Amino acid sequence: MKTNFECFPCFVEQALRASRMVTNDERTIKEILDRVGERFREIPLTYTPPEMGDYIYRTVREVTGVKDPYQVMKKESILQVLSIYPFLEKMVANSDDPILTAIKLATIGNVLDFGISRKYDLMEEIAKIENMEFAIFHYDTFREQLENSSSVLFIGDNAGETVFDKLLIETIRKPVTYVVREGPVINDATVEDAIQSGIDQVAEIISSGSSAPGTILRFCNKEFLHRFSQADLVISKGQGNYEGLSGTERQVFFLLRAKCPVIARHIGVKLNDFIMKAS
Amino acid sequence: MKTNFECFPCFVEQALRASRMVTNDERTIKEILDRVGERFREIPLTYTPPEMGDYIYRTVREVTGVKDPYQVMKKESILQVLSIYPFLEKMVANSDDPILTAIKLATIGNVLDFGISRKYDLMEEIAKIENMEFAIFHYDTFREQLENSSSVLFIGDNAGETVFDKLLIETIRKPVTYVVREGPVINDATVEDAIQSGIDQVAEIISSGSSAPGTILRFCNKEFLHRFSQADLVISKGQGNYEGLSGTERQVFFLLRAKCPVIARHIGVKLNDFIMKAS
Repeated sequence: MKTNFECFPCFVEQALRASRMVTNDERTIKEILDRVGERFREIPLTYTPPEMGDYIYRTVREVTGVKDPYQVMKKESILQVLSIYPFLEKMVANSDDPILTAIKLATIGNVLDFGISRKYDLMEEIAKIENMEFAIFHYDTFREQLENSSSVLFIGDNAGETVFDKLLIETIRKPVTYVVREGPVINDATVEDAIQSGIDQVAEIISSGSSAPGTILRFCNKEFLHRFSQADLVISKGQGNYEGLSGTERQVFFLLRAKCPVIARHIGVKLNDFIMKAS
Repeated sequence: MKTNFECFPCFVEQALRASRMVTNDERTIKEILDRVGERFREIPLTYTPPEMGDYIYRTVREVTGVKDPYQVMKKESILQVLSIYPFLEKMVANSDDPILTAIKLATIGNVLDFGISRKYDLMEEIAKIENMEFAIFHYDTFREQLENSSSVLFIGDNAGETVFDKLLIETIRKPVTYVVREGPVINDATVEDAIQSGIDQVAEIISSGSSAPGTILRFCNKEFLHRFSQADLVISKGQGNYEGLSGTERQVFFLLRAKCPVIARHIGVKLNDFIMKAS
């Protein structure tokens, strides 16, 4: 998905929000905004938004010297979801269609995204699961392909959401490789976050090789690219991965909530819709 | 009022909105956004937002070659309010306090602002006038000073709002100088717009000497500055003029609706509150 004009004010907002996570120093914040503004010209509309996201969060790290502004919040998110894990497990086990329930929960978990300005109440979202509907629901295709798959590549998104992903992985009972970011960016999951979430108990964890807040293939390492092309089934969580992968040739199953109007328009759904889409 | 960090994403949004009024050409819009981004570093936080506004709208004019993107919309706003003028006149004439009613209408008229993203329904706002309350209401001071004034400087804001201003000027029955922008910027009133609104029948119209979307004294011409310092009473309409004049030494009566969170916070009111404030 290409960068849209609407992304530019959002880039500045994201830079401001991330800066304020780290510092109150006016000159530091201004320096970050100035650098982001200067970068506009170098960002053609053919870039995907995570490419600019990569630059924004790298700039925040460089200017402030803080490597992982969201570290504490990530750990809190993970602990929050781990604390309700037994409850979530029962929801899945007792449901008519455990895989569908686990997918729903994993998609609800996608609201744990600190890159967006809107706040969602996770517990409220879970409470509404009975009435939850996907605006795009390629579930039959998913089940069919899952049945015939002996390897699944699961591209994670946010820390905390990772715990929901663990439950989905346990439920689908297939050999899974779980992909995380190479280093901290916003609250996206890293190897450390995935391990804290217990993913190592149910899947092999690998890094994409990139710290961009989304999967941009030309930034990824060889191992990831190999597994991406070889996996029988690829599951991609969240907006950033969708932005990077929506134009790729191989089939990908996207699970996400459309939390930004530009993405909602690109997919052809309404803001806040839940998506389960085979590319 | 100084530029706030929150103003930077808004600058980009305004540039985008103004560009789209004029063109669909992607390269042209991108060029405008790039120039606005490059300008961030030159905008210290000591600047007022209209100084950046001045740059943004000048850039749109320069890059697109369109001098007055909002020309048609301005004329439509003026005609819309002129069409209900006899009705507004009766509202004022039949009210217990005609000056207060005219002030309320002139403040409601401040929603005719195309620099903001939010849309207001003017007729709905007028219908609610009975319950309208000002969050800051320095009316007694205003009446007292008006009584003792033999010259009033009235700094206008948006085209269309000008028609409400005409009614207020007719109601206060004092010699008024009405100030407009030197040239077109957003939908701010120019001499032509003021004349179309009938202001020339009730006041002398002068230009501030600047096309910034707000009154920045160091951009203004000598005549304006002379009258600004000499007038017994200064009435200032809208956000842009407040942003430019809120720090000046001489007393100014600000009439506006707080349509942006940064201004609301600066004044100490809630978003969308009506303000009648003596500085």
